[in-house]
Parts: sequence; structure tokens; C-alpha cells
Amino acid sequence: MKIGILTSGGDCPGINATIRGVCKTAINHYGMEVYGIHSGFRGLLDNDIEPLTEKSLSGLLNLGGTILGTSREKPFKKRLSAASEDKPALMLKNIHNLGLDCIVCIGGNGTQKTAAKLAQTGVNVVSVPKTIDNDVWGTDVSFGFDSAVTIATDAIDRLHSTASSHQRVMVIEVMGHKAGWIALYSGMAGGGDVILIPELPYDIHNIGNTIIERLKKGKPYSIVVVAEGIQTMDGKKAAEYIAQEIEYETGFETRETVLGYIQRGGSPTPYDRNLATRMGGHATELIATGQFGRMVSLQGAEVGSVSLNEVAGKLKLVNENHDLIVQGKRMGICFG
Amino acid sequence: MKIGILTSGGDCPGINATIRGVCKTAINHYGMEVYGIHSGFRGLLDNDIEPLTEKSLSGLLNLGGTILGTSREKPFKKRLSAASEDKPALMLKNIHNLGLDCIVCIGGNGTQKTAAKLAQTGVNVVSVPKTIDNDVWGTDVSFGFDSAVTIATDAIDRLHSTASSHQRVMVIEVMGHKAGWIALYSGMAGGGDVILIPELPYDIHNIGNTIIERLKKGKPYSIVVVAEGIQTMDGKKAAEYIAQEIEYETGFETRETVLGYIQRGGSPTPYDRNLATRMGGHATELIATGQFGRMVSLQGAEVGSVSLNEVAGKLKLVNENHDLIVQGKRMGICFG
Amino acid sequence: MKIGILTSGGDCPGINATIRGVCKTAINHYGMEVYGIHSGFRGLLDNDIEPLTEKSLSGLLNLGGTILGTSREKPFKKRLSAASEDKPALMLKNIHNLGLDCIVCIGGNGTQKTAAKLAQTGVNVVSVPKTIDNDVWGTDVSFGFDSAVTIATDAIDRLHSTASSHQRVMVIEVMGHKAGWIALYSGMAGGGDVILIPELPYDIHNIGNTIIERLKKGKPYSIVVVAEGIQTMDGKKAAEYIAQEIEYETGFETRETVLGYIQRGGSPTPYDRNLATRMGGHATELIATGQFGRMVSLQGAEVGSVSLNEVAGKLKLVNENHDLIVQGKRMGICFG
Amino acid sequence: MKIGILTSGGDCPGINATIRGVCKTAINHYGMEVYGIHSGFRGLLDNDIEPLTEKSLSGLLNLGGTILGTSREKPFKKRLSAASEDKPALMLKNIHNLGLDCIVCIGGNGTQKTAAKLAQTGVNVVSVPKTIDNDVWGTDVSFGFDSAVTIATDAIDRLHSTASSHQRVMVIEVMGHKAGWIALYSGMAGGGDVILIPELPYDIHNIGNTIIERLKKGKPYSIVVVAEGIQTMDGKKAAEYIAQEIEYETGFETRETVLGYIQRGGSPTPYDRNLATRMGGHATELIATGQFGRMVSLQGAEVGSVSLNEVAGKLKLVNENHDLIVQGKRMGICFG
Repeated sequence: MKIGILTSGGDCPGINATIRGVCKTAINHYGMEVYGIHSGFRGLLDNDIEPLTEKSLSGLLNLGGTILGTSREKPFKKRLSAASEDKPALMLKNIHNLGLDCIVCIGGNGTQKTAAKLAQTGVNVVSVPKTIDNDVWGTDVSFGFDSAVTIATDAIDRLHSTASSHQRVMVIEVMGHKAGWIALYSGMAGGGDVILIPELPYDIHNIGNTIIERLKKGKPYSIVVVAEGIQTMDGKKAAEYIAQEIEYETGFETRETVLGYIQRGGSPTPYDRNLATRMGGHATELIATGQFGRMVSLQGAEVGSVSLNEVAGKLKLVNENHDLIVQGKRMGICFG
Repeated sequence: MKIGILTSGGDCPGINATIRGVCKTAINHYGMEVYGIHSGFRGLLDNDIEPLTEKSLSGLLNLGGTILGTSREKPFKKRLSAASEDKPALMLKNIHNLGLDCIVCIGGNGTQKTAAKLAQTGVNVVSVPKTIDNDVWGTDVSFGFDSAVTIATDAIDRLHSTASSHQRVMVIEVMGHKAGWIALYSGMAGGGDVILIPELPYDIHNIGNTIIERLKKGKPYSIVVVAEGIQTMDGKKAAEYIAQEIEYETGFETRETVLGYIQRGGSPTPYDRNLATRMGGHATELIATGQFGRMVSLQGAEVGSVSLNEVAGKLKLVNENHDLIVQGKRMGICFG
Repeated sequence: MKIGILTSGGDCPGINATIRGVCKTAINHYGMEVYGIHSGFRGLLDNDIEPLTEKSLSGLLNLGGTILGTSREKPFKKRLSAASEDKPALMLKNIHNLGLDCIVCIGGNGTQKTAAKLAQTGVNVVSVPKTIDNDVWGTDVSFGFDSAVTIATDAIDRLHSTASSHQRVMVIEVMGHKAGWIALYSGMAGGGDVILIPELPYDIHNIGNTIIERLKKGKPYSIVVVAEGIQTMDGKKAAEYIAQEIEYETGFETRETVLGYIQRGGSPTPYDRNLATRMGGHATELIATGQFGRMVSLQGAEVGSVSLNEVAGKLKLVNENHDLIVQGKRMGICFG
Repeated sequence: MKIGILTSGGDCPGINATIRGVCKTAINHYGMEVYGIHSGFRGLLDNDIEPLTEKSLSGLLNLGGTILGTSREKPFKKRLSAASEDKPALMLKNIHNLGLDCIVCIGGNGTQKTAAKLAQTGVNVVSVPKTIDNDVWGTDVSFGFDSAVTIATDAIDRLHSTASSHQRVMVIEVMGHKAGWIALYSGMAGGGDVILIPELPYDIHNIGNTIIERLKKGKPYSIVVVAEGIQTMDGKKAAEYIAQEIEYETGFETRETVLGYIQRGGSPTPYDRNLATRMGGHATELIATGQFGRMVSLQGAEVGSVSLNEVAGKLKLVNENHDLIVQGKRMGICFG
């Protein structure tokens, strides 16, 4: 048995731990051969692969990023020009020539979609969800999420110093285009007073009232956590827009911070390392037992799997009845 | 409605976040009055309580320890002397005189037992599990556990430097008298080569072989993670005993570290803060809906509750079929 | 002896440790009375002060921000309208009425200037330098700087994951309007390949060449650290401008991050805590020995003091012969 | 020019950054050839060396431990048996045969001694001080020290939670056999109430009084930081002994923690990375300018060098007039 493994889409803490989990299990337990495919699906187009041995796996558990490299190559994307190369056919040919019996795809929503299409062409595919945004459908949690929340919470913790010393409103923008998971979890963990996510509408008067009410209770400062994907006017960025509106609405001196790329880098948290290790091991088990076309998933406390066809094209959004929102509202936090 | 809240047993990151969750929900949402009881159940014997207001709750979310203080007072423990005071009766009298309609008990296994007994005397009791050891029965996870695992994993990460630079075996002892949760989770997250927990027997020859096998593969160093509660000979402490046995068995230079109290202190991780906040809110909801004699619990992704009578006297141990053990074995990690 | 203490200008890790150092020494050792003045010099205009006792000082050593609050009030700033209040006179009257024998001013360059002017009016003044930017003249290092460098370095460490996984150039902007200390120290500590500071001119072709040279050596990614105060075109912000120019110059996919306010918040590093404690203690010693009109300063390994008149209006900039620049250039790092 | 580099004695954060600094400067700037010698001086006996290239230096800046490995081999130690091999002669022969023009020795006090002896035999030697203990004579600070202090301070911070929640005395033992630098700096930065170092005698009654006085002031808990090398009775370890004595003297519940090996592992702080980088660069400069028999040293803010003959056999101890002790005493901290 000869398997190839690739990582695709944005980098995320825990990918290397997953590679380690897949490969150590494959080599030690099942006696499989493992090949690393470079730069996501592009490596399958370019035949850019290398054999992975136990030695290649040393030090991977807590290493950020991906040793295989990644890209946003989407080989099944429709092309306008008839003359363009037939990427799917090229991939299939290469997989066949390389003698790879199965492809393990580690990635986010885009990757799951591509993995599903690759499986539909008859290739043996097993995938693992990976995203700091936690928006892959079909799994309760993705690794990378806890790490991103931890970095964002640490940043919010720091903003409290400046907010209270200067009697300011501090607005912090965290990642999340469509899904507000990072904003919700880091906002609650960091003691945010206002938390805005793309899934919920907001009213700037409510936000202003929350801040004014705090002032009346002797707290002349507030922390506002916003997901990058919330709706704004005039094409403004989330933090910039909300900061301006709050300053206008309340008269408070307001400052914004955009956390950016540091949310996706560095060593994974222990939670993410263990989730990544388990998901990696289960991916190999799926291969060993011939369960292809499936994505590994966390369901409650158990790691199982779901059909890639079910996952592809869906997004896991925050529900307005999420326990953290219900509890947060009762505690006086404003969600819009 | 007038509720009292106490924290009992060993301190643990997330207690203050729970107090904040209980009280903010009680005050803001349900309009209850809240009283903090000092030093665990001792405060109920001494009438040592203070009113808690929103102001008392500022800064609690990320503060380690417990602002209410704690003790190991067990008021229902049988006493030999007939002359000794009747602590249960005294407690009941005080609760009545103070006009407390419900007692919220935050604590570990001992506390749940006491809470169950207190409930049996007719007092309205709601409890919240709290332990870095993760061994409270009836909840998938307790807050404090992720923080302890994070501290222990950070320590194990550091030991890798010395192990590989000096070609040594480093043995680290983490907390866990009866249950090996911290050792298992931090051992797996920290890249332990050998992980020993009280629930599983071990054979020193297996351990030695694992270390020798690593040497043969070009890795002349190993990390061994042991729970303090594993069986040893001659009354020796876990790390000391295992280090000596490994040195004798393999000839490797071996060093031990006992992590100790730093595992239970400091700011909780975001995971623990959110779990604590949710559990606190749910405790207040149990009170508001008259569901007494129950312990808040995490079940899969949901926070619910279980009967205190069911919980009391039980311990949640690591099962040998735990996914991390199954996966770990396949990756070549030695569990005994 | 009755002393007042105020903190002015931007907040910075270590201010509270300094307050603790000043006050504990004053109360315990010299038997002085200490009053906290709120919101910087504004508190002297508003008579907004409170007595500080040993109890007020608990927990201050590792607390970010300033418990006294701060403002950017500049009471000596010339005013156009003849009708405006005479702030200096008001301050002097208040200081006299409050019976304060000395004012301790903790702040950055602006604060030192105001402190010098206050001293010139005959008030007993002792000041302590405080700035994450490290640009206060007359002291080798200011507390807050090591903390800011630590936060920025941690962020740069994280960007390496994304840079290498995606084969990108990552540009990170750190604080420093006039002085590039944070960029220099965090850039060197974080393994920056290009480091740009306001004190040194840069040539975008050199920067591009550095990045292309790295590509040729098999490193198809780079980290660029820029101080916010470097010169740009068209009013663009530092990171945005440099990222665009690099993308144009090299064709590399380039991403920018602006670190922002998280650089000044949170708990100080041990280095800063000790420096702050020492400087606080020395400030009180200056008072006790009647050495007024002076700013505490670190000179080599010793804490001493300099005349406020010498400090006021100057800025400590990075010299192009700074050892880190000399060494960095030899190692192949591009400084412009 | 062909230089060899070795690391000897205990591992310490910043060694790899120094190796990087030495080699990048040597290769990029001076065009030297660099060879890594494995396992300290043992590698010179075994001819165990490898060429180092720019590629070998990737990722070293923030990596703990030493990639060259280390040992406690002391080739100049007198041997009793006449029959034993002549290690110094063997080393010289090997250095000659390998064609190494200079040996860079990175290490602590023992290493400086050996380096001095090696230089006396006529070999070109340049050394760099390296120790978490900060006790190498001739340099104001050694890299590794700030990292160790940071780890120890973080641990002390955590113990405050348990101390205050349980009303206990927490005793923590940090490294330092002869010199109390880590205890002094981490004790002061961590808010220790009692700090004991090998250089100063202590009286257990004083310590007890300090703790009782705190109780009277409403602080029924204390933190005691002890260096491992303080004098005890009956061969007891520092923390164990002091904890027992305090419990006997004060009646307080007392708990001890021995921090151990985690103080020397993991990624160096930014301060240590920059110091290590600078020292590495200066070591190469000494070689390039033919200044042999010298140890790189930090003097105030400048990196210079001292004669190895001056350094060898000396120890840098804490002076009782150290500013942190003077200031600490005034603040009410007990140093014995």
C-alpha cells in the first residue's frame, strides 16, 4: 500500500501533527509506504513528491505551518478557454504513474470540495478537516481553531490594559469571513463586552447603549470583538468601520486593531495537537479498512468520519442559539 | 432568591470564571442576590460570607485560584468522639439564619460527595465540577484540565531540549493520583515516548526496550511522562522510581522532574474560561428552574446536568481503549 | 513627607510595578505618605487623588496598564485664547493645597518635558522614564521595551509558519514613530530578513535583491519587519506601502500585518518588572535625599539619575553603528 | 580559515542562536569554513565533526538545546592511572589533522577552564560564555539567564494562585548551586516575600517573622523562593528543608516545588536571542582579527572580550549590595 499525503489551502497550527499522525500510524502499524506531495494539489500536477520516513517526522508535533507546503490550486475549477490543459486528467495520470493507492487531503472547505471531486473520479481519497475558522461542515471542531482562539484571546487580554488605563473603547478584528467562531470564542474568553459575528445582524445603537451603560456602572471603557466578515458600509474593513461608528455614537475615544496573520501561525495548543494526532491516526485507519471518499470528523468526544459528498459545499456557521451566545446575553454581553 | 456560592478542595484555573458566570447570570438575568461563602464549607460553619456585586466580579475571568478561598473541610465526615460538635446541624442552622435559598458548590470529587449529602438534608444544592485531574464522574471534561495539560505540555516541550542535547532519558511526573488524564493528554501532546498512568500496569522491560529501540533508530534520548499515582516499590515517588529503574535497565543517563503545584495555578486557557463560563451560567439556570441536587456537566458539546447522587463516590478513570491510547500504541508509544 | 504619584502618556507594561516600587519603599522604608493622582496631570488640575496604602499595592507587580489611569493632558502647552484658564497656576495651587511635598511623574518623552517645566516652577519633581519605544533620552533602557519586543518577536515567530508554508513575503509593522528600537530588536530576535527603521534610509531595490537572493539559496520566503515611522509615499502606512513595493519589485505574493496596540498591553516580562521595581525604589531614594528635578535612569548595569533639564526635548534614536545592525549586516540581513 | 565550533556543559537556551551567529558571520562576511564538533570536547577526541553550511543554520535562532550535542568531558582533568590515554595530546593531534585553525568553545565555567588550558597548549581558542546560572566571571550577563528567569518567574506567578486560595506558604526551589542569580531575579520579578541565595546566610526566625508579619497585615500566605545551593541540615534539599522549618516555625501549611530541568529548556527569550547573536558575531570577529585566548563578554551595553586566563577558575557571585537586594529590603522582602 502506497499513500500520498497533501496539505492545501491556508496554513493552520496542527497540520504537521496530522501528517505525523497519519504517517507514523501508516509506517509503524500498517507497514504502508508514505509519500509527501508538495504544495497541495499543485504537487499532483507537477509530480512533486518525496518519500516520508520516520526520520522526516521528527519534531513535527509542535511545529507550525506545513512541511509539505501548500497552495490554493483548484484543479477542478472550470476554465473558460478550451485550449487550457485538462488538469483533472493530468492528476489522474500522475497518481496512476506514481502508483499511489490513496491520497490523503488535509485542508479546509475548498480542499474538501476538491477532495470530493477527486473521489468521484475514482481515486481513493481520505480527507482531514483543517481550519482555524472552524467552519468545515461535518465535524464538531477542527484542529487549528483552539490555537487561533488562544492567540486571539491573548491579544484581547492585552487590550484590557490600554482600554482601562486610557478609558477607551478598543475594537479588535479577528479572522472569520463567513463564520464567527473565532470572534465568539475569543470574545467570550477574553471578556469582550460587545461581540459581532457575520451570522448575526447588529444595531449600532445597541452597541452604543451597552458601552454607555458600562460607563454608568463605573466602567468607562469597553472591549469590542468583531469578525472580519461582518457587514459594513462603503467597503470599510470591519474594525475600522465599527470603531468609527462607536466613536460617533458614544463620543468615546476608540482605537482599532486588526489581528491578522499571527492567528494562523506558530505551535498548536495541546488540544489541537491531540485532535490532530487522533484525526491523523483515524485517516490511516480509514485507508486500512478501505473506507474511501470520507472525511475524518470529531463527533462529541469520538473521532469518526462522514461522507465527503455530504460535506462538500457546506459551511458550518454559528447558530444564534449557541450556548455561548445564550449564556453571554444573560451575562449582559451585547451580540449586536 | 438569595444564593450562596462556595469553592472547596484544591484550587484550579477557571474557578473564578465560574463564580463570575454564576453571579453575572444570577444578578443580570434573574435578579437574584448572591453571597460568597469563604473557605469552602468552613465558611458555612463560621458564617463567613460577603455579598457579591457586579463590581466584585471585575477581572475574574482570567484570574487563577479562587477569590472566595478554599479549604478541605468535610462537614459530614464521621467523628469518633461523641462530644464533637454536630457540624451538619450547625451548617443547616446557619444556612437557614442567613436566609440562603440555595448553595452553589464548586469543587472536585470530595466536594461533590459533600454536596450530595448536603442536598440529602433538604438544602437546595447545585454543584459544578472542578478539577485539574479530570476525574469527576458524570462530566466529559472539567475546567482546569485543559489548563493543567497546557502547563504540563509546555514543560515536556522544554525537556526535549535537554534530552536531545545530552542524549538522556528525561522522566517527568505530572499530577494524577488515581486517574492518568493529565499524563495521557500532556504526554501525547508533548511527544512522550513512554506514558505511564495509574490505570494501566507497566513492565520495566517493555519501557527499556522502547528506549533501546529508539537508540537503534538514531534517537539516543527519550521522554517519559508518568502520573504521580502509578505503582512503585519501597514507597518511592513515581518519577524517582521510574528514573532509577530505567537507568538500571538501559544504562542511559536519566534525570527526573516533578512538575508539582505549578500545574494548578495561573490564568485558565480560553477553553477552560469558556467551559467555566458556560457551566456557571447553567448552574444559575438550574437554580432558576428549581432543579436542585444536580451537578452541571459537559456531555459531548452540550452542557447539561446529572444527579448528585449518581456522581457521589465515583471516579472517572482512563479506559485502556481510550482513543489516544489506541492511536498512541499504533504510533509506537509505550504505555507500559 | 507627603508625595503624589502620577502616570502620563501611553500605557506600558511595568508602570504598576514602578508605582509599587515607589510606594512600598516610601511607606515601608522612609515612612512617607503616598497619594495616587488620577489620569496624569489632569488629576492635578481636578484634585483627583486618593491615598495609597500597602493594600492598594497588592497584585501590581505583574499587572499591565496603570491603576492610576493616564491621559495626554499637557498643562504647559501654550494656548491661543487669552481667556483660557491658567493651567500651570491651577496645578501649583492644587499641589500646595493638597500639601504634596513632591510629585513623582512616570511617563515618556512628553511627560519628561512637562515634568521639567513643573520642576522649573519650583515644585519638587522626580520622574521615571516609561515607554515601549525605548526613545527616552538619558537612560540606556526604559521598562516596557523588553515586553513590547517580546510580544512583537512572538508575532514574528508565528509569521514564519505562514511565510514558509505559502512561499510568501510577510511584512509586519511594529510600533516606533521616530525610533526603530522595537523593529530592530524584535526583527533581529524574530529572524527578520529585512528590517526597516525610521533612522535609516532604504532602497526598495536592495530589499528586492535580498528577497531574490534568498530564493536562489532555496528559501522562497522572507520576513520583513518595519517600524511604523519609516518614510512612505502617498500617505500610505508603512506595512501596506512596503508590501506593495516588494510585490511589484519581486513578484512574490506578499501579505502585511500591523501589530498595533497589543504591543503595549499585558503583564510585563521579568526583565521589565525588575527594572521597574529598581527605578521605582530609586525614585523614592531621590526624594528622600532631596535630589529633585531629576529623572531616574539606567546606565550600564547601574540605576542612577540625570537632570530633567538635560532630558527634556531630546529623543534617543538608533545609531547606524548599533551593534545589532553591524552584526546583522554581517549575517546578511538587509537594513535598507 | 577553517574553524571548529563546540558546545560543552549543561544545555541552555540561546546556544543554537550563538552557533548561528558565529557561523553566519563566518560564512557570509569572512568567507571562513565552519565545522561543527559533536558532544563538546569529546568530539575532538573522537574526530566527530561535520561541516556546517548556511542551510544547517535554518531555524536555529529560536531552537532550545544545542544541535551539536554536548557532554561534560573534561580532557585536561588529571588521571590517576599512568596507563590512561593522553587526552590533551590526542586532541591536539586531531585538531592538527583536521586542519582546524581555531576552536570556538561555547560553555559555562567548566568549559572556560578547559578552553583556557587548550589555549595554553597553543591552540587558537575563542570562547563564548553560556549559562542559565549567570555565574561566569567576566561578563555582566550570559545568555540563557533571562530565559531561565522568565520560566522561573512564570512558575512563581502560578504559585500565587494556590498560596492565596489555600492560605499557604509555597516554597519554590530554582537552580543555582553556588550563585543565587536566578533566585534573586525570579524571586523579585515573581513577587517573592522571602528570597534565599547561597551567598547570604539566613535565620529561620527572621523568615518566620516575615511570614507572621504578613499574616498580621491581612496576607495569610507567602511565597518563598530558594536557590538549590543554600545551606541545609541533614543533607536535605533546599525546598524540602526550608518548607519543614517554616511549617515548624509558623504553623502555616507549607508546600514545596522543585522547578528542575524545565528551567534550561525551550526557546530563548528575545533578550537572550539578541545577546547570543551578538556574542556569536563578536566571537567570529575575534577570530578574524586574530585575538585568540579570549572570551566574549557583555560589559554594560557593549560586547567586548576578556582574557580566558583571567576568567578561568573564577565564579561571579551575587553581592549583598546588589541593587535588587537593597531595593528589595526597603520594600520589606526578607533575604534571610
